[in-house]
Formats: sequence, structure tokens, C-alpha cells
Amino acid sequence: MPGTGMDKPQRILLSHGGGGHKTEELIRNVFQPYLNDPLLASMDDSAIIDNIVFTTDSFVVHPHFFPGGDIGKLAVSGTVNDITSMGAQPQYLSISFILEEGYKISDLKKILESIREAAHESGVRIVTADTKVVEKKSCDGVFINTSGIGNVVIQPPPSFNLIQPGDAIIINGEIGLHGIAVLLARGEFSMEGNILSDVAPLWSMIEKIKQYNIKFMRDPTRGGLAQTLNEIALSADVGISLDQHELPISPEVQNACDLLGFDPLEIANEGKMLIICSDQDKQNILDILKSHPLGEKSQIIGTITSHHRKVVTLRTSLGTERIIMPPSGEILPRIC
Amino acid sequence: MPGTGMDKPQRILLSHGGGGHKTEELIRNVFQPYLNDPLLASMDDSAIIDNIVFTTDSFVVHPHFFPGGDIGKLAVSGTVNDITSMGAQPQYLSISFILEEGYKISDLKKILESIREAAHESGVRIVTADTKVVEKKSCDGVFINTSGIGNVVIQPPPSFNLIQPGDAIIINGEIGLHGIAVLLARGEFSMEGNILSDVAPLWSMIEKIKQYNIKFMRDPTRGGLAQTLNEIALSADVGISLDQHELPISPEVQNACDLLGFDPLEIANEGKMLIICSDQDKQNILDILKSHPLGEKSQIIGTITSHHRKVVTLRTSLGTERIIMPPSGEILPRIC
Repeated sequence: MPGTGMDKPQRILLSHGGGGHKTEELIRNVFQPYLNDPLLASMDDSAIIDNIVFTTDSFVVHPHFFPGGDIGKLAVSGTVNDITSMGAQPQYLSISFILEEGYKISDLKKILESIREAAHESGVRIVTADTKVVEKKSCDGVFINTSGIGNVVIQPPPSFNLIQPGDAIIINGEIGLHGIAVLLARGEFSMEGNILSDVAPLWSMIEKIKQYNIKFMRDPTRGGLAQTLNEIALSADVGISLDQHELPISPEVQNACDLLGFDPLEIANEGKMLIICSDQDKQNILDILKSHPLGEKSQIIGTITSHHRKVVTLRTSLGTERIIMPPSGEILPRIC
Repeated sequence: MPGTGMDKPQRILLSHGGGGHKTEELIRNVFQPYLNDPLLASMDDSAIIDNIVFTTDSFVVHPHFFPGGDIGKLAVSGTVNDITSMGAQPQYLSISFILEEGYKISDLKKILESIREAAHESGVRIVTADTKVVEKKSCDGVFINTSGIGNVVIQPPPSFNLIQPGDAIIINGEIGLHGIAVLLARGEFSMEGNILSDVAPLWSMIEKIKQYNIKFMRDPTRGGLAQTLNEIALSADVGISLDQHELPISPEVQNACDLLGFDPLEIANEGKMLIICSDQDKQNILDILKSHPLGEKSQIIGTITSHHRKVVTLRTSLGTERIIMPPSGEILPRIC
């Protein structure tokens, strides 16, 4: 029946939470007609109000403990990194737990210890909290929300509008570690690996480069580099050209992706920041990042171009170019 | 085995989320050793930083729709009221959804409409948001977190420290409506009723009395008046004397409580504010509250005393006094 909207999904799909195309669709078609504040409509991960950044994120990662981290470290890092990406120093966090009846208090304590450490590492204070308990089989053990406030210290604040052809794109290390680490921790694949999640709060590293001309930053989480770079190309109306030679991918992640049929560019990261800066500043920024424990494997992975606007291309090792599309479908659910 | 801690619960209990004694125990024994910021340790529902209030709350109410409201109206009202109770004007909210795969988009839209209305009514802007989707049977449909920021406008800010013997205690209407409405909506009791939840954002009402000498405010949610008044008596080191004659309880709520074996004083409210003010201001405040749609049934329900410190007493209609203890056990789970 044409015109009845029968082709639109009437129920929430897992892919609506993937951070990609279906998430955008849900936001545009369902959320935005009701929630249409201009700050929200900007589709940034955070809002800036009078130089204050305000952001929120819920964490439902499954399993709660994975090589390299847990839901607690993730909950602090995710919000710290969202604030950081706005050019702001994270200052205050709220934390809210939804716990399932019967959840082991010893596991909760491990999560709290991770939260304490990650907050300490980032210099943020956890100043307000809430706890709810739901019956068994109602929440998969524990969900955590963190919201956060930060103070913009990079001026002018990083923004799509500052991006120009010729700018360099830097990442602070190997990609795809978090998504693959969580996936393997689920034990659904008969694969084991030594892959540790990269989950980490990045403010202590970004603070070191705050005096440079940083045009834009974004942490490439759900949907990985492919998602984030396509959003940048689209919003800034520029082309993005990546060099496969320069992409830092560990052999373990490449191997796991080859076996499982994934593209490392589409896999979530939780301790990476994409930094777009002027060509002039790129070497200084790279040197500083490399001197920080969270940036030792930093690389300049590409440039902003004026051709192929709104498109992300990858120069392969064979010298050919391929287009990197934003991931579609459900990607990998529950990785954050 | 003495000294091994075998008597302490090793798993999360439903009562840990009730907002009462067991919740305090969880916070003290499990959370505080890890999260010990002085602002958090104050055990207020919100933190005040440089005249800015910051607060968080997750909402897991079951069912999502109940007479008088839904989880969306609750999520906005709860956080607006927490900010309001600190003497602050609510300004900005974040909202974060955890949705279950298969959740009806038509239900989500109803919830979003309630959110939009409640935000509009309170004059708050929803400026940042997040959505996660989890597999079926992982989250009971929808959980919502709201965090909020407000600007302290009542000076000096309401605080336990300002409470003195002789102060009056006011409430803006009938108690127990929310808890009983949600409970009956579950259909577990073979009872029907016309009881509507009182869920409402209260800032528009409290704004009208902001020029008065308000010593303290708190919204008596989980654990009801019994919980909140006991916290006040304990923290302010005062006695609280209530007058049963003056307690606004609807015959429907009293009736339901009598049949189900509950005390209306222990039932959650979501549209009530306890206001402690000087004896001198009480009549002016009462008159203003009564002229607002959310305060028509306001009453002066008791006084702060210097005897029976840390204890809440109720003068009954028989002229006797009984002690109102804080509720223990699991109270009513999932009412917010």
C-alpha cells in the first residue's frame, strides 16, 4: 500500500543502536520530531553551552569484563573522550547504575575500582550518582550511564567548520582493538586471541597538544573509522583520502577480521581519537602524541581534499583507490 | 565464621534499590570505598559546583505507562525536581535511552511526546542524547537516564544546615499517589482504582516562592515521606513532629493502603515537594502554593522541634504520638 508507511519498521531493531545509518534514521524519523533543540540537532556527541560541554552516554557492553577493560573503565572513558573531543577538559561526571537482582557484589566492586582508576587518570570528579535495582532477567547484570561536564580549553573549539582541504588526519594508534576484543570475549567464535581492548580516557594525552591548531576531533567508536570519517566528510563537505600504508592495524586484528569477515575500518575503538589539524602543525602534534603512552603508535593516516567531496577514499597498497562506505546493518551490537 | 563477612549479602538484592536503609548500606559499604568525592559523600541527590547543580537519575519504572503518566514524563520530572529541590532553576537535560530490540516505535513516540511536554512545562532544554539497543529480554523494553544542570537561584541555597526548631513543614498536596498508581497498573492485585500518579515537574510552582526564606526542600520519592523526613531529622539533628489531621491523603489511596497493608507515608511521590521554611513565611508560601495548579491541596503538615532529635513523630487523631520509622525491606520495587 503506497503512502501508508508500511515499509518503515514499526519496532526497534538491533541495528538502530549500531551508531550507523539506521541509528541516524531513528534519530531523524522518531526522535527529532519530539526533541528538536538546536544544540541536539547539531548531531554532535555533546552540547556546548557558554563554553561548557555537556554530554551523556549509556553503556550496555556485553560481556561486562573483557581483555583490556570492563564496563566501568568504558563508562568513564567514553564520556571523558566525548568531552575531550569537543576541545574541553573533562571536570565532573555523574554515574548511574542499573543493577540486576542477584548481581555479584564482588563483580560490582571490580567495576567500581575500574571507575575509580579511570576517573583518577582523567582528573575528573564523580560528583553525583544513582542506583536502581531491577528483577532478574531484566537488565543483563549491569548497565551504566555516565554524563559529564567539561570546560572548553581549545580555542577556537574544534568544529566541522574549521576543516579545510590540506589538513592532516592523525590517529593515536592501532584501530579495531576494542570491538574485536569484546567480540572474542563473547566466545561465540571458536577463536582465541591476545587482543586487548584499547579502552582508555584520552584527556591526559590530548591536553599535551591543546595549544596547537586542532580543527576537529572525534573518537571513532560505534562503526569505527568508516562511520566517523564519513560523518566528517559529509558534515564538513570535504573529501577524505586515507593511505592504507599508514593505517595502524595490528596483525592480530587484521587476522581476526580476515577470518570473521570484518573490515577493521568498521570496528569500534574506545581509546582512539581522530585529530584533524593544519598541515603545518601535524608533525609537532604527531611527535607529542608519540611521546605519550596512549599515543606511541600514532600515525598521520590521510588528508582532507577538495575533490571527491563527501566521500572517503583509501589508497590501497596496490596503488588503486577504493571508496570507504559508512557501515550499514547491525555492525556489532553491544560493544559499548 | 566470625570476621569473614559471611553475614553480608554477596549479591545485589531488590531492596538495595528501594531508596531506604538497604540502599544506604550498599552506598556506604560498596560504593563509597571507591567513589568518595566530598560532593558525592554529602548524600544529596545532586551536587552543587560554583552555583551550578548537577544531578543524574535512571528510570526503570514498570509498567512504562501508568494512570497519570509514563516513563518519559517521570524521567524529565524526576531530574527537574531534584534540581528544583536544591533551590535551582533547571536549565539543561541530557537524555539517554536503552531500548530493547522489538520495542514498539509507537510506544517510543508516546514516551517522547511526554518528554517533550514535561520539558516544555519546566522550561528546560534537552541538549544532548544517546541511544543504545539491546537484545530481546535484556532490558524490559526501555530504560531512560536523565542528567541535568541548573542554576542556583534561591539564596542562601536550601540546606540541612539552615533547618531550625520552629520551622514549618509544607507539602504541596496528597501523598502516595504515584506508588499506588504504578502498583495497581501492574495488575498483580485484583483491585482497580481511579488513582492517578502525581508525576509532574515542579519548578514552575517552586519558582513562585523563590524569594521566601526556604530552609530546605526534598522530593519524597522512593520510601515516601517516612524515608525523606527521617533523613532530614537525622542530617539536621532535629525532631520532626507531624500532625495526622493535616496530612493530605486521598480516601482512594488510604483505602488501597488499608487493603494492601501499606502505610501511605512510605509510598513514593513523584510530584510532591517537602518544603521547610521559617514559621514567619509559612502562610505566604502556603497561599502561593495553593494558587498553583500543582499545589491546590498544599498543607502545613508539621514542625521542626528541638526535642526527640533525629526522630519523626506523628500526632494521631486519637491524640497519641507514634514514631515514624524509615521504611525497611524492599518497599515497592520499580516505581521510578
